[in-house]
Amino acid sequence: MLFHVRMTVNLDPALPAEEVADILSREKAYSQQLQASGKWRHIWRIAGAYANFSVFDVADNAELHAILSGLPLFKYMQIEVAPLVRHPSSIRDDDS
Amino acid sequence: MLFHVRMTVNLDPALPAEEVADILSREKAYSQQLQASGKWRHIWRIAGAYANFSVFDVADNAELHAILSGLPLFKYMQIEVAPLVRHPSSIRDDDS
Amino acid sequence: MLFHVRMTVNLDPALPAEEVADILSREKAYSQQLQASGKWRHIWRIAGAYANFSVFDVADNAELHAILSGLPLFKYMQIEVAPLVRHPSSIRDDDS
Amino acid sequence: MLFHVRMTVNLDPALPAEEVADILSREKAYSQQLQASGKWRHIWRIAGAYANFSVFDVADNAELHAILSGLPLFKYMQIEVAPLVRHPSSIRDDDS
Amino acid sequence: MLFHVRMTVNLDPALPAEEVADILSREKAYSQQLQASGKWRHIWRIAGAYANFSVFDVADNAELHAILSGLPLFKYMQIEVAPLVRHPSSIRDDDS
Amino acid sequence: MLFHVRMTVNLDPALPAEEVADILSREKAYSQQLQASGKWRHIWRIAGAYANFSVFDVADNAELHAILSGLPLFKYMQIEVAPLVRHPSSIRDDDS
Amino acid sequence: MLFHVRMTVNLDPALPAEEVADILSREKAYSQQLQASGKWRHIWRIAGAYANFSVFDVADNAELHAILSGLPLFKYMQIEVAPLVRHPSSIRDDDS
Amino acid sequence: MLFHVRMTVNLDPALPAEEVADILSREKAYSQQLQASGKWRHIWRIAGAYANFSVFDVADNAELHAILSGLPLFKYMQIEVAPLVRHPSSIRDDDS
Amino acid sequence: MLFHVRMTVNLDPALPAEEVADILSREKAYSQQLQASGKWRHIWRIAGAYANFSVFDVADNAELHAILSGLPLFKYMQIEVAPLVRHPSSIRDDDS
Amino acid sequence: MLFHVRMTVNLDPALPAEEVADILSREKAYSQQLQASGKWRHIWRIAGAYANFSVFDVADNAELHAILSGLPLFKYMQIEVAPLVRHPSSIRDDDS
Repeated sequence: MLFHVRMTVNLDPALPAEEVADILSREKAYSQQLQASGKWRHIWRIAGAYANFSVFDVADNAELHAILSGLPLFKYMQIEVAPLVRHPSSIRDDDS
Repeated sequence: MLFHVRMTVNLDPALPAEEVADILSREKAYSQQLQASGKWRHIWRIAGAYANFSVFDVADNAELHAILSGLPLFKYMQIEVAPLVRHPSSIRDDDS
Repeated sequence: MLFHVRMTVNLDPALPAEEVADILSREKAYSQQLQASGKWRHIWRIAGAYANFSVFDVADNAELHAILSGLPLFKYMQIEVAPLVRHPSSIRDDDS
Repeated sequence: MLFHVRMTVNLDPALPAEEVADILSREKAYSQQLQASGKWRHIWRIAGAYANFSVFDVADNAELHAILSGLPLFKYMQIEVAPLVRHPSSIRDDDS
Repeated sequence: MLFHVRMTVNLDPALPAEEVADILSREKAYSQQLQASGKWRHIWRIAGAYANFSVFDVADNAELHAILSGLPLFKYMQIEVAPLVRHPSSIRDDDS
Repeated sequence: MLFHVRMTVNLDPALPAEEVADILSREKAYSQQLQASGKWRHIWRIAGAYANFSVFDVADNAELHAILSGLPLFKYMQIEVAPLVRHPSSIRDDDS
Repeated sequence: MLFHVRMTVNLDPALPAEEVADILSREKAYSQQLQASGKWRHIWRIAGAYANFSVFDVADNAELHAILSGLPLFKYMQIEVAPLVRHPSSIRDDDS
Repeated sequence: MLFHVRMTVNLDPALPAEEVADILSREKAYSQQLQASGKWRHIWRIAGAYANFSVFDVADNAELHAILSGLPLFKYMQIEVAPLVRHPSSIRDDDS
Repeated sequence: MLFHVRMTVNLDPALPAEEVADILSREKAYSQQLQASGKWRHIWRIAGAYANFSVFDVADNAELHAILSGLPLFKYMQIEVAPLVRHPSSIRDDDS
Repeated sequence: MLFHVRMTVNLDPALPAEEVADILSREKAYSQQLQASGKWRHIWRIAGAYANFSVFDVADNAELHAILSGLPLFKYMQIEVAPLVRHPSSIRDDDS
């Protein structure tokens, strides 16, 4: 089941550089593990912004929430979720 | 080059059913041709809305605009465009 | 799987009374059938507004969209969808 | 009498972990006591957000305000209240 | 139980003058009857706007909704409702 | 002359408790003195919010501003002012 | 007593030209009479918009509302009112 | 050439009182010098707000920006600028 | 003197095609004449939108307003104006 | 390929003056180098604001993002990006 997610990161500019580096390192590992598993199907950086558009393929709402609330950056992000369905004009067998 | 696009359709409820059917039929053919060509890489319906999230893979801004302004539904839609770039955490060779 | 939905109805005041009555009659039957089936778990009118908060219990995003886009009032409504999950403080076995 | 409430939590990321844990522990106990009493009829986590939708069944506005302003998280939350009434299409004897 | 209500009237400028006069005449009678009964405790015009702030004193949410949805201008208005409670600094015995 | 005022209080959660208590104590005394004088005609707490709706009866704009800017909570509040006039449907001799 | 007013005109482009001309002619006469009387102290067109900023000098809220609601363009305008007071840094005897 | 400016001041409540007093004293002197020169033609306090509406009469955009960015409160203010022109209904020779 | 202008066109989809063609033809001629004169220094289409960003180089606010209000599409457009000044980091002699 | 960018700077007023001076000095050098290279085609200060409108001429989205995210002020700015295309009414060979 697919969900569209926009994540916008708001890091306090006063946060120590090492702390930021640590959070970002953990965030990257977390994201890549989920991409490798197929659950985090797409992630694109939005040009000019500290933000991304992502598409998740999960079993249900609960799995989506577990993934998002487990993000190392979760408490520094604004997150918008939209459930997706197959578009009637889509020509693909697998819409993900 | 990738662009994220949200299209929201606002059809006047008073529009005659045949006129709507004609526009939608042309819209579907137009979209499917572009999907087949690889330029319209993704299209998802947003659950509960007459709207979609799409990702386009085009040569430049001009091609993107030509595609969007050529949509049969163009004058009935609100369109938001965001240029995309590869995300630094992405594990895919081809981000599209 | 639960979804929270807010529906706001925007009927053109110039719509003929019989047409409105027909739409509303079909809307009521449609809603009551889904309530009886257990898929439309809650529906509350918002005091002072032509709007409701509802909770749906559906198999997936696709079923949610099929239900919402099939509403006789669909093209006259603004709809906001939010996927729900069990709250960690909930004391109920069945959160619906 | 039913009220729909959306609570969004905005905790300062710099708040010490022990202080957060203490507030959340008290919040959970407070919420569960009210759920057990039947006054806090529903609570759902919104997927991807530090927020919930709740439904309260209280005697009057004053009781609602006493409950909400007594929340241990009250000063860290943004709260939106909407009074509810029975929906004319509802099939349930007890709308709560 | 008190509720604060803001009503903003949006009449189509193309509506025939007689139709407007009829609606407004019924609206005035309806409002004055409720004022006389004590349920519509306050009504003020907002200077420069076709809008009012009102305070209702009703038994419950259901009575409030019945009154508001029965307004002859209901389908031409945008209505915002806020439940009120006694303010801790109030010096009045009767807060209405 | 009547003015409708909405005051929303935004106190920094990190403000020391004694400092808050001192400000609130002065705020209450200030408000009650103005209520007793008849200038602060109504004050209602908005349920679920740290906010109030008030109605002031003052000689002119200058007196209104002097009262509002003298509030001990002034620098912690967001204030919205709307001038009021007698509503043409009002049945009261004294609209305050 | 001074009030700042922003008026934004929204004329339906489909309105017949003669009807527009008639309304605008009456609007101009109405405005100039009030300017001559000293009550409409300032009126400026906002560059690039069909809108103006004005300052009124009236006895009270009631006179302001009578003037604004009497505008021939009233039902085609969006109006925002802000009560003004002497600025503490002003060097003028007459602030109007 | 006239410009309409709205300035809203957002001073951190935690700023030391002496620092605030110093800034405000310099702000007042700066404003009064410009009023005396005729460049700052009007300044009004908005009742209930820490904000003003002003009208500037300057040679060009550059002079306006030099004046505004030189305000001692500049970095604490939100500023909205609108270029003004003579209103076609104005009866004054000098619109300032 | 430079001004930044965003123009968004909102043509009623029901407008007859010939009427639209006539307006657009006059709009194009009008725009090109001003571009040739040097007053309309830049015009860019915003990709995916019926909108443009433009830069005007005019003598004063009055000339800007005369140009904008003379646009054949004026009554179908939403226009946002921002006065520009030389940027302190600019390396160009002529900033236009 | 052209992009329109609005940058709004939000520097914490409490930031030490030397730190601000250092950032601004690096920002200026960075901007001027890109202007000299032809990639940063236009930069205008918005009168009365700590903000600019810019036009970039880059190879693709990736180059745009690299430039913007490399700005010394990046983490203190809000950035809005819009892809541009040649306007059908433009008379210039080179639209940049």
